[in-house]
Amino acid sequence: MKVTISKQQLNKAIQSVIRVVEHKSAIPVLNGIKLLVDEKGMTITGCDTEMMIQSYIPLHIDEKENMYIHTSGQGVLNAQVFNEYVRKISVDELEIHIDDKFQGKIRANKTDLKINGYDPLEFPAIPDFFPDQSFVISSHILKQLIRQTVFAVSSNEQSPILTGVNISLQQGILKSIATDRHRLASIQYKTDSTAEFHQLVISARALQELNKLLPEEDTMVQIMFKDNQILFKFNEILLYSKLLDGTYPDTERIVQNAANFTTEIVISTELLIDTMERAMIMSRKEKGNVVNMYSLDDETIEFTSSSTEFGKFKESLSTGKPLQNPVRVSFNSKFLIDVLKVMDSEFVKIGLSGDMNPIYIHPTEVHDDYQTVHLILPYRTARENV
Amino acid sequence: MKVTISKQQLNKAIQSVIRVVEHKSAIPVLNGIKLLVDEKGMTITGCDTEMMIQSYIPLHIDEKENMYIHTSGQGVLNAQVFNEYVRKISVDELEIHIDDKFQGKIRANKTDLKINGYDPLEFPAIPDFFPDQSFVISSHILKQLIRQTVFAVSSNEQSPILTGVNISLQQGILKSIATDRHRLASIQYKTDSTAEFHQLVISARALQELNKLLPEEDTMVQIMFKDNQILFKFNEILLYSKLLDGTYPDTERIVQNAANFTTEIVISTELLIDTMERAMIMSRKEKGNVVNMYSLDDETIEFTSSSTEFGKFKESLSTGKPLQNPVRVSFNSKFLIDVLKVMDSEFVKIGLSGDMNPIYIHPTEVHDDYQTVHLILPYRTARENV
Repeated sequence: MKVTISKQQLNKAIQSVIRVVEHKSAIPVLNGIKLLVDEKGMTITGCDTEMMIQSYIPLHIDEKENMYIHTSGQGVLNAQVFNEYVRKISVDELEIHIDDKFQGKIRANKTDLKINGYDPLEFPAIPDFFPDQSFVISSHILKQLIRQTVFAVSSNEQSPILTGVNISLQQGILKSIATDRHRLASIQYKTDSTAEFHQLVISARALQELNKLLPEEDTMVQIMFKDNQILFKFNEILLYSKLLDGTYPDTERIVQNAANFTTEIVISTELLIDTMERAMIMSRKEKGNVVNMYSLDDETIEFTSSSTEFGKFKESLSTGKPLQNPVRVSFNSKFLIDVLKVMDSEFVKIGLSGDMNPIYIHPTEVHDDYQTVHLILPYRTARENV
Repeated sequence: MKVTISKQQLNKAIQSVIRVVEHKSAIPVLNGIKLLVDEKGMTITGCDTEMMIQSYIPLHIDEKENMYIHTSGQGVLNAQVFNEYVRKISVDELEIHIDDKFQGKIRANKTDLKINGYDPLEFPAIPDFFPDQSFVISSHILKQLIRQTVFAVSSNEQSPILTGVNISLQQGILKSIATDRHRLASIQYKTDSTAEFHQLVISARALQELNKLLPEEDTMVQIMFKDNQILFKFNEILLYSKLLDGTYPDTERIVQNAANFTTEIVISTELLIDTMERAMIMSRKEKGNVVNMYSLDDETIEFTSSSTEFGKFKESLSTGKPLQNPVRVSFNSKFLIDVLKVMDSEFVKIGLSGDMNPIYIHPTEVHDDYQTVHLILPYRTARENV
């Protein structure tokens, strides 16, 4: 293949795919980035053993020509060197030539770069997707689904299924759930979709990459899936990922029970984040990152944390409305901060039903189009700590 | 001690000293930050085993009161916790109380923090400086002395003396030199000072900290030294450091010889930096980070670099004026980039005298008040590589 291509378009496409490419994969070809040129444009692909991202550069965008194709074909070049070089060369266009021995030659201005390549036939391909099922969703909704849940996945590889977010669509209700057994985050949307599926568990990493690739402006994303694979398609981007295997735990009952809390605290989201961040200075080096919360009277909540090495923290906050019952509970302060940061609400409602039952966190501002549920399990040695 | 103090002033003072404080020193008191309150204000000190920084908060700045002193005294609080807490609390002022058992209590708004402390008598003191010698220098000159040389010190702890910058003042000439045996950077100023000293070798780390603390606007810095110690004093800051022991190598002859080059290349500083950065994509993983430079004709220089793993780089640049002799030399591309970045000159002059002698680098724009000399030793296997 040989092509003369806009540096800006090429760079943009490379940036979309480069993050999934490993630097030192034991499988040499996975250190590469694949370029495929046909009569319609250039497709750039990066992948690892779990996922793959493709970015497409069409011949023209509006009236502007992006490339001149001398000969079509394909090749795989070392991703790190190719990426850095394209970023560091200040020209409008550059010429890429990949020969039959997989070697790349890049020419721009008075520069000449030879990059070692790999056999493109060894590069993984995206499986054919004549999908069993597919549906279409707004990128803004998809971003919200990810944002409200992905922080709560487990980082423990011993329960692989919990390192992903579980997405389901039943009777028009699109649900996204994440839990690491100590907390749970979920969001649901009402859609017009007639598609139905029970469990698609997508790795947090794939969702985080997807989230970075989704554009600012709202766009439609097509989602296709079959067997244990999923494909997201929007604009010039295509993200493919394996789904996580296993049975996702049933969380229906715990969510329903937690919604029946007996005491409700309403408190400023911003002030509570600040207080938690100060409390964490003491708690974060201690087991469980524990902060204790209890009512001083029916309109004041006190938070404490302590560290044998560093000292003790104590701070009180006023509640937005009187408490029905006294409060006394302990929990991981980092978990609460994670939830508060996605609340998008000036005040937050914290529902409690005893010091052993899940803490229910909810924005006071109701969103028409979606509903979230966030739960944190109390720290069990609460009584000893307070 | 007990004091009510402006959060902003306190935070500013802590930021000046915090960087030298270790997090996990085996000597517990060195994990602390010392607060000393007397009738004139508060002095905050951080240190490690090599250096110490003090920042002083006076009772008043102009008309504005910075603190109210309840009782004077001193204490040492855990630096990390104290620093983070002060940064994260949004109040105008806070109350600090350190009791006889070294425990700190900090009160602000509805917050109460107890910080474990250390015995202030165990905290190192700055030795008395009835200095053997002292001199005064503009902070702008001092910044330039550091900037032009500090990048060239050795990072090899086997020759400790080379990990510092050697400063001397003789017959009014203030000189600063750094070398790691593969390159040399030096700068000299003409001053009115009658002080004389032959060798003060200051660690790169102390100079880098000093450089960060020196203000944007020009100010006078008093420098005092005795035995193997040095003290810098300016505004409300005091930086103390041990000097490096040993005999600094004599570099006079090598500098004089290098100035008698036989070929001179004049080239755009900015274009040469860009070219070197591209060349480094290939060279930096190879031994010696080698780039080859040679003349194609009397107005074109070509640069090449290569990596067995990744490929080959080649790029040519036009010279600003015709070459007297053909050029063929190899060197560490990172070394050249380091020098070019401190040139402050649109064009740079590269003086050569054979492929085994030092490369001399000089700005084409002459500075009235100072003169620099930068040398890079060629890479010795040049002939094989080109």
